[in-house]
Amino acid sequence: MAFTLHYASGSPYSWRVYLALEHKQADFSTRLISFDAGEHKTREFLAISPRHQVPVVTDDGFALYESSAIVEYVEERFPEGPPLFLKDARGRALVRQWVSEITSHVERPIETLVDEIFYQPDVAKRNRAAIGDARTALAVELEHFEGRLSAPWLLGQLSAADFTLYPFLAMFPRFELRERELGLGALIGPKVREFMRAVEALPYFDRTYPPHWRT
Amino acid sequence: MAFTLHYASGSPYSWRVYLALEHKQADFSTRLISFDAGEHKTREFLAISPRHQVPVVTDDGFALYESSAIVEYVEERFPEGPPLFLKDARGRALVRQWVSEITSHVERPIETLVDEIFYQPDVAKRNRAAIGDARTALAVELEHFEGRLSAPWLLGQLSAADFTLYPFLAMFPRFELRERELGLGALIGPKVREFMRAVEALPYFDRTYPPHWRT
Repeated sequence: MAFTLHYASGSPYSWRVYLALEHKQADFSTRLISFDAGEHKTREFLAISPRHQVPVVTDDGFALYESSAIVEYVEERFPEGPPLFLKDARGRALVRQWVSEITSHVERPIETLVDEIFYQPDVAKRNRAAIGDARTALAVELEHFEGRLSAPWLLGQLSAADFTLYPFLAMFPRFELRERELGLGALIGPKVREFMRAVEALPYFDRTYPPHWRT
Repeated sequence: MAFTLHYASGSPYSWRVYLALEHKQADFSTRLISFDAGEHKTREFLAISPRHQVPVVTDDGFALYESSAIVEYVEERFPEGPPLFLKDARGRALVRQWVSEITSHVERPIETLVDEIFYQPDVAKRNRAAIGDARTALAVELEHFEGRLSAPWLLGQLSAADFTLYPFLAMFPRFELRERELGLGALIGPKVREFMRAVEALPYFDRTYPPHWRT
């Protein structure tokens, strides 16, 4: 098949693109990249992803990385599917504004938690101040979203913004498996919870769920 | 005038949008926001920029922040001007890939330098390790760009990617005014230098130059 998503299980950036492709009813195949097995460091992978990052899409000789750029490409590449952006220029701009806000304000504290919790199995060696700052930053953002989203979606209709936010929030229980007292779940208000349930009720959601989270 | 850019002098995000608007030969006015005078904290400004950030554009009752979203909006809003993106879907995708890469890999170390140098006038209180890490990250990126750009532009023709990168690089001498030994200028190779000169030779460049840097 010409269009392939190269992704990693549990990568929120991969999940964003996977949801977008399913939403567009795109004809695509997937290739699961195992970081544990070093598959992101092969010469073959480096040729399509010079920074060794996932996701990457390949499309008949064309390779593209950076998930927000991929989602825009998916929108253009599969025009017959349901839209990922609003129809008029102002609506599209607001979707992109949300995507950028989530990148600036949610992605960064999540990356801190990934570094401090996923990559530091020794609880005693974790940087408590960094974890505390990340939790505070997420608390501010989640309160902000709670007040701004037009339930169940961020922008009145399902869009690329929803697929950008959801995978980060879905990681909260994964952090708490490794650090019970983190209290991230308590930050999620009723409207954000409703948003998460709406994503989880999408007919294609199960197919996109990170394989290694099932076990 | 209906379309207004609200910007701050020296803000690389503002400069990116200013260059994009000039490139599109857009009909717009500017409003300089003084952070020193607290103009970003007025109720009037908060109404258009809930995070108190610049740039913001207002367009006949519509307000938009987040510079990468604004540049996309400018491209759509002024379709008659020279393009900010490449013509086909793959070309547009590559511009967006570059913009995301610059956001992930250049913006973050630059923000560290802003925090540690601009906002910490006492040299002795600056976090040397953080400054060193930021410099190393920028060295890696600049070597990467040196090898990848198709001189003088990042992508073979002038695009939004160039306007995203240039303002960050133009800050190097500003950091070095406050910390002479930083050695950021030495990180810029001949192709990146040629790229910077090409931006500086644009006929509208001088109009966009940060007002307070002239003195």
